[in-house]
Amino acid sequence: MTVRAVGVDLGGTKCLAVAIDADGAVLAEHRVATPRGGPAVLEALADAAAAVGAGPGVRVGVGAPGLVDREGVLHAGANLPGARMLDIRGVLEERLDTDVVVDNDANCAAWGEFKHGAGRGAGVLVVVTQGTGIGGGIVAGGVLWRGAHGFGGEIGHMVVNADGPPCPCGKRGCWERYASGTGLGAMAREAAVGGRAERIVDLAGGDVDAVRGEHVTAAAAEGDAGAIAVLDRFGWWVALGLANLAELLDPERFVLGGGLIEAGDLVLAPTRQAFAGLVQAWDARPVIDVVAAELGEHAGAIGAAALAADR
Amino acid sequence: MTVRAVGVDLGGTKCLAVAIDADGAVLAEHRVATPRGGPAVLEALADAAAAVGAGPGVRVGVGAPGLVDREGVLHAGANLPGARMLDIRGVLEERLDTDVVVDNDANCAAWGEFKHGAGRGAGVLVVVTQGTGIGGGIVAGGVLWRGAHGFGGEIGHMVVNADGPPCPCGKRGCWERYASGTGLGAMAREAAVGGRAERIVDLAGGDVDAVRGEHVTAAAAEGDAGAIAVLDRFGWWVALGLANLAELLDPERFVLGGGLIEAGDLVLAPTRQAFAGLVQAWDARPVIDVVAAELGEHAGAIGAAALAADR
Repeated sequence: MTVRAVGVDLGGTKCLAVAIDADGAVLAEHRVATPRGGPAVLEALADAAAAVGAGPGVRVGVGAPGLVDREGVLHAGANLPGARMLDIRGVLEERLDTDVVVDNDANCAAWGEFKHGAGRGAGVLVVVTQGTGIGGGIVAGGVLWRGAHGFGGEIGHMVVNADGPPCPCGKRGCWERYASGTGLGAMAREAAVGGRAERIVDLAGGDVDAVRGEHVTAAAAEGDAGAIAVLDRFGWWVALGLANLAELLDPERFVLGGGLIEAGDLVLAPTRQAFAGLVQAWDARPVIDVVAAELGEHAGAIGAAALAADR
Repeated sequence: MTVRAVGVDLGGTKCLAVAIDADGAVLAEHRVATPRGGPAVLEALADAAAAVGAGPGVRVGVGAPGLVDREGVLHAGANLPGARMLDIRGVLEERLDTDVVVDNDANCAAWGEFKHGAGRGAGVLVVVTQGTGIGGGIVAGGVLWRGAHGFGGEIGHMVVNADGPPCPCGKRGCWERYASGTGLGAMAREAAVGGRAERIVDLAGGDVDAVRGEHVTAAAAEGDAGAIAVLDRFGWWVALGLANLAELLDPERFVLGGGLIEAGDLVLAPTRQAFAGLVQAWDARPVIDVVAAELGEHAGAIGAAALAADR
């Protein structure tokens, strides 16, 4: 039971640290609430990493939400108020006395699924993580795509409907307005206003405004027709973004992660069906698989650890 | 004046063959009209290549419009009726007695600009060719992106406006509905119907239906305010797709090619302005250059030759 590396996934609400062995199995894990403010965040990251064994001889990987440059500096942290130009690598290397690598959290999740999850063996892989927003990572030929400045993979802000609803990023109709958990909740509330989501609203305690994505998948799991219709529409929007990525990147496989994907085929089946209809010349090209992630909420931390181990 | 390789760009209307030297300079070129039907197309390609010196010791690259697999077979040829599952590599290798490489025409143009044009030295480069449709190619770390099956780079069919006009591909609101020469013509005809494109219509002989992209750039070059307004709108749509690609791929540079780009800053200036407003955290990240292609209509043939030379 030798610790190969430590990974920490920095989220808006919690930091999750894991120690993994050479096969990517989790040997220990530790969680702390994410504090507010840059210095406190750095302190929490270091503490969490140390708690699972980071230190001399045990490298650390950190997945951070937002734009991370190649020096390991978080430029602008999504959902991390006050965290701008955070020198994660510099501070943690000094504090922990070991090598530290830092990457975008979605890149880390992609690397985790590629090395130890549902993306194993894929020549060209795109991992899409659907949560509050959408994150993405690309692995090709065994190499994580980092772009020219380490800022790639922000696929949630691919505009798919220029006339669509405004996004906090300033644009309209970004993919994550539709294909995230937030998007699913919004679609369900729309259906509820139209009187087509009775059971979903029930599950949300009778309050339309309280409807979230998980109420849709729960109602659909019971066989509720209204919820299934919402998921059909949702799957179309998921597939639309996947089709854009397929036209551009020609991947062999898509791995979908994030909380929603725990609903399994309720989400995957309508997505796959719509996807086949949206990719050009579908019948003339090799199949592109769309599968569920395997590492769940540990993907980012495991991937961060694996990135550190592979460095 | 040694021929390094021969490249042929197969288009819907013509085949353009070039012989290049080691610096990518064109030593000879030959054009023939593209005939109809698969066997005739293969014959024309071989003749054009032979006319500029292809044969034993002189490799040949071919850029073909549509989905080309890694064996050099054109699966579905855009604008080439009757050309399905065309074994370009197999037939040309036998006929010319030399090594032949075949790739998507937009990939070839991207490689041409990377090796010998406006993309030289870019760590991560995206080349966008705006013609009747939009083609694209990606070069990262000196390697042309081919995807898992050789089908990448079909960026024209990235949906940017799901509620937009139907595309011949079956989807709605594909980027090439807006940001191609065809898209520019459509925007100008819309403006004309609204009475905001008098000079553009003049240049099209007074016939609204005859308005094409080149009439817009010609009127704008004269300083016509209506045409400049159309190009502002057009530039926004070009920028929207570039911003999507930037979020995903984080390139260092975009090279824009195709006939439209001959209008230079009339097209580039509004595109660059809109682009800066569409990319997330623009002020917090390194600049992404948007520049005009340098190889003009020879990009595809030069790139195909360079691909063959580099093989």
